Amino acid sequence: MLKQYTISVDAMGGDLGAEMVIPGVETALKRHPRLRVMLYGDEKIVGPLLDQYPEVKQRSEFIHTDVWVEMDDKPSQALRRGRRVSSMWLALEAVKNGHAKVAISAGNTGAWMVMAKFVLSTMPGIARPAMAAIWPTVRGKSIVLDVGANIGADAEMLVDFSIMGEAMARCLFGIERPTVGLLNVGVEEIKGVEQVKAAGQMLRNSKLPIEYFGFVEGDDVGKGTVDVVVTEGFTGNIALKTAEGTARQLSAYLKAEMGRSWMTKLGFLLARGAFASLKEKMDPRNANGGVFLGLNGIVVKSHGGTDAVGFASAMEIAVEMARNELVEKIAADLASKHELMELGESTEEPKAAAAG
Amino acid sequence: MLKQYTISVDAMGGDLGAEMVIPGVETALKRHPRLRVMLYGDEKIVGPLLDQYPEVKQRSEFIHTDVWVEMDDKPSQALRRGRRVSSMWLALEAVKNGHAKVAISAGNTGAWMVMAKFVLSTMPGIARPAMAAIWPTVRGKSIVLDVGANIGADAEMLVDFSIMGEAMARCLFGIERPTVGLLNVGVEEIKGVEQVKAAGQMLRNSKLPIEYFGFVEGDDVGKGTVDVVVTEGFTGNIALKTAEGTARQLSAYLKAEMGRSWMTKLGFLLARGAFASLKEKMDPRNANGGVFLGLNGIVVKSHGGTDAVGFASAMEIAVEMARNELVEKIAADLASKHELMELGESTEEPKAAAAG
Repeated sequence: MLKQYTISVDAMGGDLGAEMVIPGVETALKRHPRLRVMLYGDEKIVGPLLDQYPEVKQRSEFIHTDVWVEMDDKPSQALRRGRRVSSMWLALEAVKNGHAKVAISAGNTGAWMVMAKFVLSTMPGIARPAMAAIWPTVRGKSIVLDVGANIGADAEMLVDFSIMGEAMARCLFGIERPTVGLLNVGVEEIKGVEQVKAAGQMLRNSKLPIEYFGFVEGDDVGKGTVDVVVTEGFTGNIALKTAEGTARQLSAYLKAEMGRSWMTKLGFLLARGAFASLKEKMDPRNANGGVFLGLNGIVVKSHGGTDAVGFASAMEIAVEMARNELVEKIAADLASKHELMELGESTEEPKAAAAG
Repeated sequence: MLKQYTISVDAMGGDLGAEMVIPGVETALKRHPRLRVMLYGDEKIVGPLLDQYPEVKQRSEFIHTDVWVEMDDKPSQALRRGRRVSSMWLALEAVKNGHAKVAISAGNTGAWMVMAKFVLSTMPGIARPAMAAIWPTVRGKSIVLDVGANIGADAEMLVDFSIMGEAMARCLFGIERPTVGLLNVGVEEIKGVEQVKAAGQMLRNSKLPIEYFGFVEGDDVGKGTVDVVVTEGFTGNIALKTAEGTARQLSAYLKAEMGRSWMTKLGFLLARGAFASLKEKMDPRNANGGVFLGLNGIVVKSHGGTDAVGFASAMEIAVEMARNELVEKIAADLASKHELMELGESTEEPKAAAAG
């Protein structure tokens, strides 16, 4: 028999909460016969839904909790109230204890991130985890990280992001040697900020099994020039949101133009199949799910405002990570990083020595 | 009689060079009866074109030069070869000497920037000039700066960008009190990098006549939430190119979808008016032109790959700047900055004193 794998689910997260989580989980379970689910939430809310979705009821383990994090809780607040008892915390603990491979929530991003760091802690050698987004491109999909877990990153962090993003691309896209590019303001080696140039040098000179492409620019992301685009979180977050804004802007233009006259309306009617397909391509629900990388366990964040379709799509990402054992791959890559890279000594300053 | 204004034009810049510059200038002259042009280029190339475009021949002063900067020259190379003698240098000198209000080129961006700094030098109190882009939004157009003149900016530079961008919005859009936002990864005051937070505080507490909106996120740019979006050059450049990439990506999707079947093709045919109008909205030629701000003179950069239509659109920007006396407005605003802002002492470290 093929191996099963388990995903732990915060049933209370998202603007719509359990009402969209449970049907989303149902869809995922129907798609993946080997998937099992651990479900954390309030019995009063989740219980009646389980009766409506028999597949979930049958193939999940439900754990009651009467504490959960609200969408507008501050991370510190969430941690104070939710530690050890909330649906988020318990879903993460399931990963820590080895009961689940991946944890997923559509809840409060800040709280989910802080709790994930607390419960799972960072992998050996990783300074700070990153958030990876799946970005639709003209060639298919790419991974972009960091899209906002941190602000700023030194060269070594950018190299770590490259290692982690590359492993994720292997799991998610099933390609053997994904290409990795560093986001920059030009493709020449002399361009850009120091950290990015230094990271480029490190990746180029390393013996890491990474297909390092070089620098890429903002317009390369949508082109799909590389499978993995690496940047620090401030720029990554702004690039991601700018692209989302541009897509919405063009949809608005198109909609307005199509309603201009009876001719354009008729044209729209005839071409509605094409528009439906375009809409699906542009539908953010189909690329729904950020992934926190660099923790001792994989943590998926679904958009808070999503519905069951979007949550099922985020579950899809969680499934790929779980069955391809992403954490193990990243751990192996990171373990070999120091011998494979000509890093020389540690890049950290010997502060204590200097002070003494 | 209404006052005339003069724009100095590098006739040799751009991938297509004089062949697109001269007809672009012709269009601008026909639109603006008070416009006069100083034209710098090689007589062998420009001369025959002037015979084809009588309006340009009549209303421009042509100055021959046999040196010009190539599109792939390094800035240092361009400066060595082109100083005092190239079409770029001479066009900038016309602004310095007061013979023209604005200089424009579609040539090599790096060389144009370096020469502009050299010839015009920065305004008093301005550390480094910025490059402003005109960004189409669902509400109309916004100005985004810096889109790549510099990498990194401290809080005071971001405030200077705000002052300069705001003055440009008044000139270009004819609005009395344009709104200004700082690009960030969240709208809460505690979010983001230190420089952005500090700039926000400075703008909020200042008595500057600026309508400071607060922080904006990446998706606010396309929404047109504010008239002026301020950020440092690395992030600004990547955001701009990411948006361009996304627009091209969606055009490609749309094109592919519309050719799928005879129904969609017929639909496309009927709705072609709408598509033409959409295409025009998305046409980068219609928002063609970056503007260098912070120099003692206004310098416009047209896209290198543009044609006559695009160059005419960049000329349009130059015209607005010239007839609204943008430099004078910025100079006045900057002059009053120190008294209007609660800047306290100079933000610069008294390095010499500390070293002594």
